[in-house]
Amino acid sequence: MPQQHRAKLTRRAILVGAAEEFDVIGYDAATLSSILRRCGITKGAFYFHFADKEAVAEALARQYLRNLAEMRKQWFGRGLDPLSTLVGLTGEAARRVERDVVLRSGLLLACQRIGAESGDGWDEVFDELVRKAAEAGQLRPGVDPAEAARVLYAALVGAHAVGDDPVGLADRFAEVWRVVLAGVAGEGWGADAEPTG
Amino acid sequence: MPQQHRAKLTRRAILVGAAEEFDVIGYDAATLSSILRRCGITKGAFYFHFADKEAVAEALARQYLRNLAEMRKQWFGRGLDPLSTLVGLTGEAARRVERDVVLRSGLLLACQRIGAESGDGWDEVFDELVRKAAEAGQLRPGVDPAEAARVLYAALVGAHAVGDDPVGLADRFAEVWRVVLAGVAGEGWGADAEPTG
Repeated sequence: MPQQHRAKLTRRAILVGAAEEFDVIGYDAATLSSILRRCGITKGAFYFHFADKEAVAEALARQYLRNLAEMRKQWFGRGLDPLSTLVGLTGEAARRVERDVVLRSGLLLACQRIGAESGDGWDEVFDELVRKAAEAGQLRPGVDPAEAARVLYAALVGAHAVGDDPVGLADRFAEVWRVVLAGVAGEGWGADAEPTG
Repeated sequence: MPQQHRAKLTRRAILVGAAEEFDVIGYDAATLSSILRRCGITKGAFYFHFADKEAVAEALARQYLRNLAEMRKQWFGRGLDPLSTLVGLTGEAARRVERDVVLRSGLLLACQRIGAESGDGWDEVFDELVRKAAEAGQLRPGVDPAEAARVLYAALVGAHAVGDDPVGLADRFAEVWRVVLAGVAGEGWGADAEPTG
């Protein structure tokens, strides 16, 4: 096996092992030793690739951000209407995060602002696409696009946060879309936030 | 000052100091020394009331849960319709959490399952009230109450999580109610979670 190829495999093994460790016990609780134990890599081999635990975390977050940018580019390039683009993009992101521990871990690290100082930019994607949806006449009359974008974003953040399990994330996202986009209250009940009785 | 009264004040000072410390730097980062420094209490006086940092955290979480149970009882007793009860109860909880660091800290600790093994029970409140709303004919035809309850709960959890600042929590909750209860999508756009273009 050429040395360069072996180095690549080792680097990948460290990333997967660290991602699994962060995923199971959390970034703060994970130690360099627990990561090395999990991936079966010596300290020497580790230090050839990374300076410390923080450096692996940053690499995981960067990989997630690159992956996200790629997905975003693909979905924006498909020529779908703005709401379909948003539903499709978030759905694919959820399915990828469900099955890939490296992305799942990168997402959690980016949420904790590790390796991604300004967050992962999802709030801006929501804002852009919901504004475009308003321009395209996709929203109910009277809906404020900036407000709707913030609420849709919050609903998906919450759907991610309340799940004990990454399996089912795409299903939870689909629930959010069904309920929020269709609306919950019947015509008879005012949408005002003040109790009326 | 009678000794019992002084002891009560000291206990209160410890709770407020610990709540502020957890609120600012987080439960994990807070130490017994940093808490003592903040409330200006000696170690001896602290140990008269609590065994350790964990014990203060448990007391804070219990105080939040008691407060929540009281609010819940009041709102359920007002004879409002179920959706108004839910909007009113969550709104009051948000306003209290905004202005009271002891409750804010207790909420965060309960979310981390510190002093509240089974969570704070908000998900069950949502489930109960949205089912009652369905029975009372308050939901749009075709809306699944259990699903709507999960999504509304997730949206408020998300609105709590995305805010950098506890100020504005009640406003963010009001946004969620406005958008989710009124519905976002226009009649022309299918609420299906699959892109159609």
